[in-house]
Amino acid sequence: MSKRGKSSPLTANHNNLTQILIDHGLAALGDAYVNLVYSLALSQRNGKPTGEKVKGTILAEALRKATLRQYLPSKMDSHAMADAAEALMVYVWLNGQITIAETTQILEKAENPIEGFAQLLKTIKARVTFP
Amino acid sequence: MSKRGKSSPLTANHNNLTQILIDHGLAALGDAYVNLVYSLALSQRNGKPTGEKVKGTILAEALRKATLRQYLPSKMDSHAMADAAEALMVYVWLNGQITIAETTQILEKAENPIEGFAQLLKTIKARVTFP
Repeated sequence: MSKRGKSSPLTANHNNLTQILIDHGLAALGDAYVNLVYSLALSQRNGKPTGEKVKGTILAEALRKATLRQYLPSKMDSHAMADAAEALMVYVWLNGQITIAETTQILEKAENPIEGFAQLLKTIKARVTFP
Repeated sequence: MSKRGKSSPLTANHNNLTQILIDHGLAALGDAYVNLVYSLALSQRNGKPTGEKVKGTILAEALRKATLRQYLPSKMDSHAMADAAEALMVYVWLNGQITIAETTQILEKAENPIEGFAQLLKTIKARVTFP
């Protein structure tokens, strides 16, 4: 199947990283996605199911560590940076460029949540493609 | 792969429906799962990404419509019934008995959220197996 064939109709209009990172709709969907993969990673680490929301400050710091801050407009607060991280993480999943299994494995192995999300965002940055 | 081979270590101790439905940890993980699949179904229907939380009253009513209420202790409020629905929905996904794609398709096609979740829970009830 071609890359075009696999791309999600929900993200067909995105041609570069910045367009993904500032998409509020993707961020809203990404919020739900990130809470699931984070809860799943914690569940796997603890050996029992659990649910936990990810703090925005963690995602914002991870975005900086993954050197993705440069793709965003200069005036953005922590909340907007967390949104950007969520949008990008769900974008690659929607487009079949990463699986939930790989995502949770990266988060589960990390020493702490900031390192986990930074590692995940670095992996995504190196892999993301556009329609 | 055998059913045993596919079963999730997170749910290895569940031998019947009631044990799943009253598992608070599964409900917590299920809350994140259900918010994702519901947001994804809405996104697909709208043709653009969006995020929305599912109200507990919707899940409680869907659980009743799917005739799953009988597997729960007699004294349970709406909140506990919503938890039960969330626990069951994530259980079957964790154990490879349903995919996110099939789940969102059922929700997307339904006339309204209650019908969508009721249909989904009926499908799950007919399909769920234990380790």
